[in-house]
Amino acid sequence: MRVLILGGDGFCGWPTALHLSAVGHEVAIVDNLSRRNIDNELEVTSLTPIAPMSTRLAAWEAHTGVAIPFHRFDVATQYHRLLGLLSEFHPDAVVHFAEQRSAPYSMKSSAHKRYTVANNLNATNSLLAAIVEAGLDVHVVHLGTMGVYGYGTAGMKIPEGYLRVKVETDDGDVVEQEILYPPNPGSIYHLTKTQDQLLFAYYAKNDEIRVTDLHQGIVWGTQTPETSLDERLVNRFDYDGDYGTVLNRFLMQAAVGHPLTVHGTGGQTRAFIHIRDTVRCIQLAIESPPARGERVRILNQMTETHRVQDLAKLVSSLTGAEIAYVDNPRNEAAENELFVENRQLLDLGLEPITLAEGLLAEVSDIAQRYRDRCDLEKIPARSLWRAGTGPGVAALG
Amino acid sequence: MRVLILGGDGFCGWPTALHLSAVGHEVAIVDNLSRRNIDNELEVTSLTPIAPMSTRLAAWEAHTGVAIPFHRFDVATQYHRLLGLLSEFHPDAVVHFAEQRSAPYSMKSSAHKRYTVANNLNATNSLLAAIVEAGLDVHVVHLGTMGVYGYGTAGMKIPEGYLRVKVETDDGDVVEQEILYPPNPGSIYHLTKTQDQLLFAYYAKNDEIRVTDLHQGIVWGTQTPETSLDERLVNRFDYDGDYGTVLNRFLMQAAVGHPLTVHGTGGQTRAFIHIRDTVRCIQLAIESPPARGERVRILNQMTETHRVQDLAKLVSSLTGAEIAYVDNPRNEAAENELFVENRQLLDLGLEPITLAEGLLAEVSDIAQRYRDRCDLEKIPARSLWRAGTGPGVAALG
Repeated sequence: MRVLILGGDGFCGWPTALHLSAVGHEVAIVDNLSRRNIDNELEVTSLTPIAPMSTRLAAWEAHTGVAIPFHRFDVATQYHRLLGLLSEFHPDAVVHFAEQRSAPYSMKSSAHKRYTVANNLNATNSLLAAIVEAGLDVHVVHLGTMGVYGYGTAGMKIPEGYLRVKVETDDGDVVEQEILYPPNPGSIYHLTKTQDQLLFAYYAKNDEIRVTDLHQGIVWGTQTPETSLDERLVNRFDYDGDYGTVLNRFLMQAAVGHPLTVHGTGGQTRAFIHIRDTVRCIQLAIESPPARGERVRILNQMTETHRVQDLAKLVSSLTGAEIAYVDNPRNEAAENELFVENRQLLDLGLEPITLAEGLLAEVSDIAQRYRDRCDLEKIPARSLWRAGTGPGVAALG
Repeated sequence: MRVLILGGDGFCGWPTALHLSAVGHEVAIVDNLSRRNIDNELEVTSLTPIAPMSTRLAAWEAHTGVAIPFHRFDVATQYHRLLGLLSEFHPDAVVHFAEQRSAPYSMKSSAHKRYTVANNLNATNSLLAAIVEAGLDVHVVHLGTMGVYGYGTAGMKIPEGYLRVKVETDDGDVVEQEILYPPNPGSIYHLTKTQDQLLFAYYAKNDEIRVTDLHQGIVWGTQTPETSLDERLVNRFDYDGDYGTVLNRFLMQAAVGHPLTVHGTGGQTRAFIHIRDTVRCIQLAIESPPARGERVRILNQMTETHRVQDLAKLVSSLTGAEIAYVDNPRNEAAENELFVENRQLLDLGLEPITLAEGLLAEVSDIAQRYRDRCDLEKIPARSLWRAGTGPGVAALG
């Protein structure tokens, strides 16, 4: 299949591009390098020394003989570049990662809120409008987030996108229907993903665009078999307070002798997936598209749930690192349960990588290997969800 | 109260500004004149000869002694103008009309879809982000649409924004909860209003912004007591296929001897409200704001429902005009029932103006008076909801 990856330079996009290329798909990448530019803004770098795009692609071609074309433009604002590329490349599938993906970054200031809303919604709408204008039948595979559901659902298992509800009518009859799961986003970033869902539902209904929305958990791990081939192919590793995600942050904090920073009580339960499963899930989604005219297919792309404090204790027991409880910058419940349905990807053949399987060592190795590149000042989370609330930055100094 | 009207030059915004000024509020207007500019693009003008903004405001001041300041900028893109104005004017309420409001216009082309999404969502988000950044406690009153609900709800009365549902849990218990009514938008324009709802819900939850969302029916009528004071204050009257709304279009078609163009069977039932009730509803909403921290207050701003074919027959019987059934450009059900709850505005004191009350004559008088300004070529609806479907433009020449 011909697959266009929007956002193919990012943490999930890059290993996805290589994996799909490795299994024989014809891949092209679009990216405006926004993630590297945000590193410049935040004065931080990936812990791993990621190579420039041309070096990455030359290394991939050297190892595999396969060239991946790269188009540098902004999907949200350069519509005619996108339209032209779609018409020329004629993809069977477009994987849409072209969104600002950090919740804390989206809450840093009014400018960050506005950038996240404008970038994410205009990118999604431009893609869908371009597919309609080009008159193509393209399967859109979008990276959503478990965060669209919100957390804390009274012990109920979170279904895959749709919820069966009963409504009492005026004359006392009960009507049963399936609705999009009522969204409850916890940040501006998560909000944009709930608004994306409405865009997808509309274009699937009006224009019969085929869409798969993958509601992904928190990704852990760094490398895939493809990014491990050559240091020039190394994937990015974010450890800073904005883009670093919880488990990778703990492993990296342990590697540099920093206490494991748990926000609040650590009683939050979250869904997780390993980066190697992310790329396989996307392959599975691409290779079995929904039929034209079908409603949006929503899959929960996660493999296990853990309480944050349990992850901290696990990493602490493996490494001897201390745990530091700091104020939670997020406006969220201190404690929650989380049960998630993920039957569809398992049925498509996913064999999950679990925390138990020793891949924690891979992340620890990466963190150890590049520990000298770490700027300790960048570890604390500094975004405020609301004026007057704040993370315990001072406590960690 | 100090009230800032975003979009105060438009069909609803202008009479709202005058009405709120007349009842004693301190009003200021923001507008980028986008509606007049779209007239230029569509090569059409308001049937009524609307005066330039400075002439309008000079006439209002001449009649009442009250000056209404006017700020010409784009809420969606000129954030710092908006932030500065909020900080300086310190409004108690902001009435947000600053959105592209035509469903057919939003479907004309990819460019129109992208403009509508970018304008409407960035305007709403900028307003909310600016209120947070300015640290103000402002009541946002937003013009939503009955179209967020979709049409055809199995005979059920549409509630005001929230739906009580029952969900069966995994262990067979039944949990009851109230959710935002599951949206079912019929155009890109309507879609943006369903996405606005998620913005409002998020900022109401995270930042305790007070929001009232008025889900308005189709507005009919032209003039209010204030816009009737002086011809320089006359309200706009849209009769074209994009911005003209059904009842006003019928009355105007009758006035110029054009057949009444009914799309499809005319079996669609729609909710209506007179422009004089619109401005009173907004006054009622402003004068009883929700408490800080309360969820978004959603009111259905409509007073009666009618089947389109019945309206055509009514106008035909009053005027002798013929009825022409043409293809429906919209991707929608041919026939639907519609029952709507509107208790909250009635409880606040609204005394509805109904079709029966002779105000049809006001619209007919306006249409007769300015019939020479009509361009018959602009009457047919020419937007296509989907490639390959089309309105019966040819049939009408």
